[in-house]
Amino acid sequence: MKISEILSIYREEINEKLSEIYLSGPESLVTPIQYVLDGKGKRLRPLLTIFSAESCGSSKDNVFSAALAVEVLHNFTLVHDDIMDKDSTRHGKDTVHRKWDDGVAILTGDAMLSLALKLLNENNDYAYRQMKIFVDGLLAVCEGQALDKEYESRSSISTEEYIKMIDLKTGHMLGLSAELGAISAGMSDEICAKINDYGCLIGRAFQIQDDYLEIYSDSINMGKSLESDIVLGKKTFLMIQAIEKNKNEINNLIKLAKENFNLALNKIRNFMETNGIKRNTENEINKILSLANKKINNLPIDKSKILYFSELIQNRGN
Amino acid sequence: MKISEILSIYREEINEKLSEIYLSGPESLVTPIQYVLDGKGKRLRPLLTIFSAESCGSSKDNVFSAALAVEVLHNFTLVHDDIMDKDSTRHGKDTVHRKWDDGVAILTGDAMLSLALKLLNENNDYAYRQMKIFVDGLLAVCEGQALDKEYESRSSISTEEYIKMIDLKTGHMLGLSAELGAISAGMSDEICAKINDYGCLIGRAFQIQDDYLEIYSDSINMGKSLESDIVLGKKTFLMIQAIEKNKNEINNLIKLAKENFNLALNKIRNFMETNGIKRNTENEINKILSLANKKINNLPIDKSKILYFSELIQNRGN
Repeated sequence: MKISEILSIYREEINEKLSEIYLSGPESLVTPIQYVLDGKGKRLRPLLTIFSAESCGSSKDNVFSAALAVEVLHNFTLVHDDIMDKDSTRHGKDTVHRKWDDGVAILTGDAMLSLALKLLNENNDYAYRQMKIFVDGLLAVCEGQALDKEYESRSSISTEEYIKMIDLKTGHMLGLSAELGAISAGMSDEICAKINDYGCLIGRAFQIQDDYLEIYSDSINMGKSLESDIVLGKKTFLMIQAIEKNKNEINNLIKLAKENFNLALNKIRNFMETNGIKRNTENEINKILSLANKKINNLPIDKSKILYFSELIQNRGN
Repeated sequence: MKISEILSIYREEINEKLSEIYLSGPESLVTPIQYVLDGKGKRLRPLLTIFSAESCGSSKDNVFSAALAVEVLHNFTLVHDDIMDKDSTRHGKDTVHRKWDDGVAILTGDAMLSLALKLLNENNDYAYRQMKIFVDGLLAVCEGQALDKEYESRSSISTEEYIKMIDLKTGHMLGLSAELGAISAGMSDEICAKINDYGCLIGRAFQIQDDYLEIYSDSINMGKSLESDIVLGKKTFLMIQAIEKNKNEINNLIKLAKENFNLALNKIRNFMETNGIKRNTENEINKILSLANKKINNLPIDKSKILYFSELIQNRGN
């Protein structure tokens, strides 16, 4: 079977189970939870969990509830982050706090987190090990979001600070996704740690690629409004370098973006190319991806499926 | 040692450990988390966990991190509920969303929940059993809050619906607190379930007593503004009965409360007495407390300490 066929079968199964997770309970929770989990997410995290499990000799069925748990955890963070970031659209639909209100969105997120934890507890055999890293991942994502908000009000941040933040916010959860699969195969702590590192680095590349595509892709491909982050002056991997090169010019372009977005975007693209930031970012993404692959290169596992994940990320912009 | 001395020693130890739970992390999380856990809570839930453990033959040390976990879980719900309920004061201090903003409060709550889960994982021996009921308790409290919000916009609710809501919102977490102690002593599922029932009923009595004290106690004793719930027309155990007796009169008194609170309160007190609602509520609280005590009466445990908890609740209004 071609990998694209496997992907679509797995995605369908994930979506089916997600739609059945919470059917009875207060109406004001059941409806928004269904609404969120009906979304058109790429399901990258549960796919990574399943691929990792299969690579390590476990099976999809053996890790399926943990895979669902990590997807529900991810969606919990989206629901709460959207309130904090005042985002009104997610995967082409109104966000929960927009469709209902902040209170409903807070509670929906909280309940989804408890459902994620319940799913994780379903698999008795490795529940303790899996729960330990799951909870660490939850704290990391909160810390990442906290840093992200702190950075908004700072005039400048370094690339190192930025990497720390995206590792916490995105990397740890992909590391967790990968490690859940390895744990379900009873892998040693040492192997699990390397598989976690792999996922974390993939997450880092993924986030920097997000920053890159924000400037170099069309809105439609990204599935969210790309105007918002530029107009908001969000400090991305590219913008941090641009600010270091010429703070005044970039600030002027951000101002211009509020009036004439397309003109400003073209000028920002030019600026990034002229100053080598585009090339530098492309190199960085490839460097991180090859570092990720190196982490698992010598492990005694069948790497084909998990490495496919690196490809999936690499070819995302094309 | 007198029980009041034990209480104060335990409370001090709980407060000390709570203040050390989260010292390093993003400033925008560390500060509000410290602020919340520095609060002057009664620490009823961790005390119940410890008393239950001691009654069952386990020890304070053996259950201490689980006891802290349940207190942090409780405080997580307060932080999020205060946003939803737009409450500005808690234990005599500004609420988190008031002192900072909604975003900080959402994230503070989320991070506190992850800290609670981490604490629970510290005790390896019974972590799986404890985690299972902890996560159920978390979902219950979300469902209870959801029902509470749903009820706000309904013109009437029955006493049964109300009991269901407070059991989810308050009862389950006290049941959980008690059961965590029993699990730490390796008690059987059957005994654990009875100890959970005991805690849940105590929680029910506690909440109805809260409703009672809202009308029959001074604001100072309650540690929160008692005006708010009456003025908001909150459907409490007493108000539900009052609405059943004479909806128009009670609605008029709620309206009056907005203009002249003390006059309205006196009239509401009279109404409750004349219609037997005061007496009925007192009877109900005592009935629930004795039902709670009966749940554990025949268990092969040293009941003295856990039963002291019933007394603590019973004598709260005096």
